[in-house]
Amino acid sequence: MSSRLNPIAVFDSGLGGLTVVRQLMRRLPGERIIYFGDTARVPYGIKSAETVTRFAEEDIEFLQGFAPKLIIAACNTASAAALPRLDGKCAVPLCGVVKPGAKAAVRKTRNGRIGVIGTEATVESGSYRRCIADLNSDIKIVARACPLLVPLVEEGRTSGDPIVRAVLKEYLRPLKEAGVDTVVLGCTHYPLLKPGIRKVMGSGVQIVDSARETAQEAADILVDSGRVAPARAGLRHRFFASDHPERFARLGRRFLGRELGQVRLVQPELLNGCLALRVAKKA
Amino acid sequence: MSSRLNPIAVFDSGLGGLTVVRQLMRRLPGERIIYFGDTARVPYGIKSAETVTRFAEEDIEFLQGFAPKLIIAACNTASAAALPRLDGKCAVPLCGVVKPGAKAAVRKTRNGRIGVIGTEATVESGSYRRCIADLNSDIKIVARACPLLVPLVEEGRTSGDPIVRAVLKEYLRPLKEAGVDTVVLGCTHYPLLKPGIRKVMGSGVQIVDSARETAQEAADILVDSGRVAPARAGLRHRFFASDHPERFARLGRRFLGRELGQVRLVQPELLNGCLALRVAKKA
Repeated sequence: MSSRLNPIAVFDSGLGGLTVVRQLMRRLPGERIIYFGDTARVPYGIKSAETVTRFAEEDIEFLQGFAPKLIIAACNTASAAALPRLDGKCAVPLCGVVKPGAKAAVRKTRNGRIGVIGTEATVESGSYRRCIADLNSDIKIVARACPLLVPLVEEGRTSGDPIVRAVLKEYLRPLKEAGVDTVVLGCTHYPLLKPGIRKVMGSGVQIVDSARETAQEAADILVDSGRVAPARAGLRHRFFASDHPERFARLGRRFLGRELGQVRLVQPELLNGCLALRVAKKA
Repeated sequence: MSSRLNPIAVFDSGLGGLTVVRQLMRRLPGERIIYFGDTARVPYGIKSAETVTRFAEEDIEFLQGFAPKLIIAACNTASAAALPRLDGKCAVPLCGVVKPGAKAAVRKTRNGRIGVIGTEATVESGSYRRCIADLNSDIKIVARACPLLVPLVEEGRTSGDPIVRAVLKEYLRPLKEAGVDTVVLGCTHYPLLKPGIRKVMGSGVQIVDSARETAQEAADILVDSGRVAPARAGLRHRFFASDHPERFARLGRRFLGRELGQVRLVQPELLNGCLALRVAKKA
């Protein structure tokens, strides 16, 4: 049984999950965070459910080495594709970003029409649709894949950029036409474009930031099990990436809202090695 | 020694290399092509040279199983980052896309000013710059990373799309301002946006399509060594992808200009397995 001083481990295909870490730091300031960004294989959003599940298994295996009390899949694609298959197989509680976002949207909508935007894989997986329908089957859902938003954010563009404005206008049109009153940001990169999304959708529409909702869910899990870490001085978070740690540290600032400090490279062989051993055992 | 009936093997991080295959089919209609798209780890363009080299080694290892007479790295990122490190280590002749494009640009420019567009990794590697400077050190080069063009093409957008037009206008501005008379398409996705690039740059500017130049280089290599395959009926090309073969076949049509037929999935464990063995041997 892990103690309340054990860390929270977070993984994502790359940088996006840092928006979840940002909210965790706000909501749970006593927690030590271990973050892994799988930048050697980013993005997960255009890959098959099988491949994403395999990647997520390897990410989780790596993070278990830090004896976390909770592991967060801070990646909509991994949460959508892999968590349902991995739930129960992992000794540590697992939490994704899809359920918290879906729950918040159902709570917030007044007219029963919810829009969901995400990567191709997240939208194709239908996970938000299922999750929302499980909570309230009367709700109408309009989902739209927005494959350009991640590269736009990673290129450093913000809501004021004319290309970002044009792309948002095009992507959000079907959501506006359907008259949704709530939009779920179904990708951890999207909180960085919240001002632009709010502007296109209009002030009457509520934006559900799944990063924020996930931090709340993590807090609930820890409170329920009496494992919230007390506020403490000298907390040292650790960041790992499977490729390009300098690029990760440089771009990561904008996602985290502060400096990351040192980002360590995880030799991708380590991840592949674990897998190769498993494959060898199966064969 | 491979015979002239052995296939030509081609790899890329994903779909882009199919533009090279298209030109190979035009230029060398008797050749049997084996193609591997590493869609489980696409894109290479934002990853480090070490990681891209490792991926390219694994791709080449897989393709050597087909006893090819020539292997083409139909990926600018892999050609730029990996080929200089792999040259000489491979029993089969290796050919990339950077040198053929650079040579053609130097041949075509009249005013000695060449523009190069490519992914972040290709531009950062400085490979076109070095290659062009080796041929003629007086030439002025303006290079610009264009990270949005690959996702724009993969989303199915073409030169007429207003967002594509706006993005091209922005990316190509420094090339226009520098007065280049030749632009190298330093990414195998870009030939699909040639009409838009031509429109922004104006009719006086020559566009070097490295896919076309690479097919010419491959033809030269085979002619020089007397190994061009004779035209023959019933040629069967083979396409492999490390993820999502249906998506590959569906999107691939636009790159190849015809149907691909069946695309087979290469279990990514196969690639990782080769690597894990090598790592184990080293340890």
